[in-house]
Amino acid sequence: MQNVRTDLAIELHEMLMEAATELSGVTVRQEDKENIHISRIGIESLKAQVQMGKPIGNYITIEFPHINIAEGEDYEKLCRVIADELKRLLPIKEKSNVLVVGLGNRSITPDALGPEVIARLMVTRHLLEYIPDQIDEGIRPVCAISPGVLGTTGMETGEIVKGVTDKIKPDAVIVIDALAARSMDRISTTVQICDTGISPGAGVGNKRKALDKSTLGVPVIAIGVPTVIDAATITADTLKLAADTEKAKENSKLYESLSSLDPEEQYAMLKEALPETLAGFMVTPKEVDLLVERVSKVVANGINLALHKNITFEDIEAYVS
Amino acid sequence: MQNVRTDLAIELHEMLMEAATELSGVTVRQEDKENIHISRIGIESLKAQVQMGKPIGNYITIEFPHINIAEGEDYEKLCRVIADELKRLLPIKEKSNVLVVGLGNRSITPDALGPEVIARLMVTRHLLEYIPDQIDEGIRPVCAISPGVLGTTGMETGEIVKGVTDKIKPDAVIVIDALAARSMDRISTTVQICDTGISPGAGVGNKRKALDKSTLGVPVIAIGVPTVIDAATITADTLKLAADTEKAKENSKLYESLSSLDPEEQYAMLKEALPETLAGFMVTPKEVDLLVERVSKVVANGINLALHKNITFEDIEAYVS
Amino acid sequence: MQNVRTDLAIELHEMLMEAATELSGVTVRQEDKENIHISRIGIESLKAQVQMGKPIGNYITIEFPHINIAEGEDYEKLCRVIADELKRLLPIKEKSNVLVVGLGNRSITPDALGPEVIARLMVTRHLLEYIPDQIDEGIRPVCAISPGVLGTTGMETGEIVKGVTDKIKPDAVIVIDALAARSMDRISTTVQICDTGISPGAGVGNKRKALDKSTLGVPVIAIGVPTVIDAATITADTLKLAADTEKAKENSKLYESLSSLDPEEQYAMLKEALPETLAGFMVTPKEVDLLVERVSKVVANGINLALHKNITFEDIEAYVS
Amino acid sequence: MQNVRTDLAIELHEMLMEAATELSGVTVRQEDKENIHISRIGIESLKAQVQMGKPIGNYITIEFPHINIAEGEDYEKLCRVIADELKRLLPIKEKSNVLVVGLGNRSITPDALGPEVIARLMVTRHLLEYIPDQIDEGIRPVCAISPGVLGTTGMETGEIVKGVTDKIKPDAVIVIDALAARSMDRISTTVQICDTGISPGAGVGNKRKALDKSTLGVPVIAIGVPTVIDAATITADTLKLAADTEKAKENSKLYESLSSLDPEEQYAMLKEALPETLAGFMVTPKEVDLLVERVSKVVANGINLALHKNITFEDIEAYVS
Repeated sequence: MQNVRTDLAIELHEMLMEAATELSGVTVRQEDKENIHISRIGIESLKAQVQMGKPIGNYITIEFPHINIAEGEDYEKLCRVIADELKRLLPIKEKSNVLVVGLGNRSITPDALGPEVIARLMVTRHLLEYIPDQIDEGIRPVCAISPGVLGTTGMETGEIVKGVTDKIKPDAVIVIDALAARSMDRISTTVQICDTGISPGAGVGNKRKALDKSTLGVPVIAIGVPTVIDAATITADTLKLAADTEKAKENSKLYESLSSLDPEEQYAMLKEALPETLAGFMVTPKEVDLLVERVSKVVANGINLALHKNITFEDIEAYVS
Repeated sequence: MQNVRTDLAIELHEMLMEAATELSGVTVRQEDKENIHISRIGIESLKAQVQMGKPIGNYITIEFPHINIAEGEDYEKLCRVIADELKRLLPIKEKSNVLVVGLGNRSITPDALGPEVIARLMVTRHLLEYIPDQIDEGIRPVCAISPGVLGTTGMETGEIVKGVTDKIKPDAVIVIDALAARSMDRISTTVQICDTGISPGAGVGNKRKALDKSTLGVPVIAIGVPTVIDAATITADTLKLAADTEKAKENSKLYESLSSLDPEEQYAMLKEALPETLAGFMVTPKEVDLLVERVSKVVANGINLALHKNITFEDIEAYVS
Repeated sequence: MQNVRTDLAIELHEMLMEAATELSGVTVRQEDKENIHISRIGIESLKAQVQMGKPIGNYITIEFPHINIAEGEDYEKLCRVIADELKRLLPIKEKSNVLVVGLGNRSITPDALGPEVIARLMVTRHLLEYIPDQIDEGIRPVCAISPGVLGTTGMETGEIVKGVTDKIKPDAVIVIDALAARSMDRISTTVQICDTGISPGAGVGNKRKALDKSTLGVPVIAIGVPTVIDAATITADTLKLAADTEKAKENSKLYESLSSLDPEEQYAMLKEALPETLAGFMVTPKEVDLLVERVSKVVANGINLALHKNITFEDIEAYVS
Repeated sequence: MQNVRTDLAIELHEMLMEAATELSGVTVRQEDKENIHISRIGIESLKAQVQMGKPIGNYITIEFPHINIAEGEDYEKLCRVIADELKRLLPIKEKSNVLVVGLGNRSITPDALGPEVIARLMVTRHLLEYIPDQIDEGIRPVCAISPGVLGTTGMETGEIVKGVTDKIKPDAVIVIDALAARSMDRISTTVQICDTGISPGAGVGNKRKALDKSTLGVPVIAIGVPTVIDAATITADTLKLAADTEKAKENSKLYESLSSLDPEEQYAMLKEALPETLAGFMVTPKEVDLLVERVSKVVANGINLALHKNITFEDIEAYVS
């Protein structure tokens, strides 16, 4: 997992909201479209950037814990919401061409989201070049790549994408990645879109690793979906519930000290305590194969709808199944 | 995972060893073959059965934390050890025919061990029937099935295996299953073989679920390999280490109460506390695909060597790769 | 491929139609539902059985060469047609329970149709047993198995299915299998349903291999879809077209002899000529993975709709994607 | 399949050998290492280039029809022969870094050879950069990519590889691809290595499609293995055998005309006759999954041995299984 440390912006915000009332330089707008909750967070000042630990930019979180993402009306609505929110952040014109990059390791299921989305994408750049007459109006040149991960390529993803970008010269890049969430409830029920790309480390970082406007030279939109939770989270969640068990209540001292734990402090402690061997482990839903397949269809549909005009939902459905 | 609650007998023993000095009615013999540690536990009395929570019978645990199971000399040695230990428990004669059953869900990687072993097995029953002249002396009739899991078949595994056993009439059955371990270190580094089959629940249990001599009518040997750990384990392990972190030491009360935790009590508490949603999660190594592939080769090789005489290691290698 | 020699009944009929005007004891009814063509062939006399080389019974062929089976209205209509035709041949009552068997080798893509359908089936037998209160009216007990093939199990499929049937005692069995067709156009564009089960060889045959009422004791419906063509077909098809090439016309003797070839005689000759090594080869569409996935969704949907009452198309869609 | 039209150089040579005695400007050296036959063909003049339809350069063909490539001594020997022959053509120095490119579509099994080899490669560039102290002497910087195919990326493979090459600046590129052969016997029993890269069309061709020194700026070695045969081949092979069948002999005119066919003329005729729909079909061994897995291990081992000094066969075996 390339960025298992990447927290979702909305979780960061939730956490900070508990400590402070309202951060200056951070705007939050919320909207509900029936069962789908949309939060648009803007980080607008350097101070806010430091406080949030995320670069200046726009972060949209789409939450859909209660809908069936496998099929039906809700499924279609979710695809359209993703398309609409993606269009908000994608600064492209009618003929602009777009490169979509699927990060992650296709042989580790929860990390395969990026390659799975790429496999379901409506790729058109070559068609517009070789058989332009047969392509409908409103179809934009789109190309796509799943570059693989450092351990299997020996190259930083940033190097590969930079090489391809310099050669292909897209007008914008969309990067898709699996995320690690702090909460079990977020797995496959949240999509996050931001216009700051992917920058490991806060601002500084290794330039070869970053995928953003400063490194690629064009706008970079990142789409992320949580597919794993980190081991500290699962420990903290269990511990919180442990304070209420009969066993804990029988042992008053333990009960007291567990109850008194400040959640953030506790998380930090557990994170520190995590044995090194645990770094090689991941916590995923048992049905992770199915979840990754389904959410990758939703994300691919959202991108297909956002990039091409005048196409129907049925048109794009043929690409994702 | 069919039997995520199945603890390894050696872990049970370890735990009980801490409490009592030596259980009567339990024999333990240990042997080291270079880097491979073998423990042979015999549960010989009803009292011991109750104390251990495992039926009367023989439990062999093969541990190999420090060897390369991918290839080379150690790999071959491990295959031979598994074959030798399997032969100890397998009460068959020269011409006996054997049915091997691979339990588990092939589309959930850590649960796919059984089907993966079956895919690498040297299956011969049909050859001995249709082209006996072309088959070498010493090749025994072996057949195999991966029956699937309740959720995808609608039938208890025990029903399917009983139906096939009644029809085929093997002289013995070998059942292979993925296990859940209490310790991260055991993942893919332990193979357990026992002659009591698989009986969910301690003794009582649903007859349709059990795979043992009482239900199938022939001896049943079970081979298990841990491929997941349970979430309570990961929490307990982390918590134990948490007592030594700087953060815990700063907070004397917390430190005291964390340090005073009795491991078994703590595990029980965490197990009780585990949220229901967590039941849908699993904790596996990131490289679980590779580990399951490798360990299934080792187990398949062990079975192939144990069942067929006069075959060389090279002969069987062709089946597992 | 278990039955690569199985010709589709409709192809047999087509061939016989060319020779004779109308066979007595054979009824043919045709119907078009928009783009879907349905042929219902009844073999009603022993004489017709001998002439057709197929047992007495009903053979329904559903052809859909021009529709998009990936999604949309046509997709849904096709699922419903399959359900309707399946119901014609399935002699079950309201509470009857059904066992569905997916034949074929899941690791050879064009042979994996059966297991792929099973993976998309709405399996309910265990739910009706363990949580009957939570299951809607109209849901029938359905169970399913993919028994594997002789080469990997060492057991005839018929033995395994017989064992399971004797144990589970279903009221009917549905068997799904990939077929070999004589024409390239049929690949993934034809579904055949018959009520005679699967009987290798014409009537005689090995009882352990047959899956029909005489061996299983209950009605057996077979559903087949062509996913490969045989090598003699590809040669014959090419040869027929070769007569019209410039090269053939330049050589009058060759032209004459190619043109004079009787198709059936030629096919028989090529079949005889096929080198043994060729038996190990198969001819499939390049996108066979995608085709098998799509057609298995259609077949699974058809079965799900036929077996359960009061369920909507959306309900079942969740199972197949 | 990107280059299903690519004939193996040795097949070209075989064909030309039948027509002419010896081509000037073509050198042929043959060597047998026990069961492995090596042919080294040099195309040395423009005239020979035109006659052979292949660019000036060196073409090595390694044939091993009779050995077990799954395991054992022969397996190891074959890996070493591939390594030795690769080293002949690879003009690199001790510290040179190498990029390995796996062409082909990983979701069409017979085309997945390239990506499968990449998955088994010993990739080291990142290790030498981040943890040089832990890497043994003799390990060379190697990186690798599977760029995907035009239909799924929208980019010519040549564009992607050019972009990555310009960014990474390797000293040499090795390209791996699945080939189509004219003879069934060659499937998975032949490895071809050449130093002319991959150039679609004879010399002219689309520069964006070529992967050779002229486009990438560094030496390009191509490694190819036949995994499919073309449909004209299967037709021609069957037809040749058909001339000897009883049926053909009964029909003297047909027999005569079939026997009189010049093989090359006949192949051209059949190729012309092949229906367009057939272009979407492929002819592969039934066990193509297993063959591609095995041959990709052999090729990966060969590359690993050729690129890194002082490593043992056991070292590299851990990477390919």
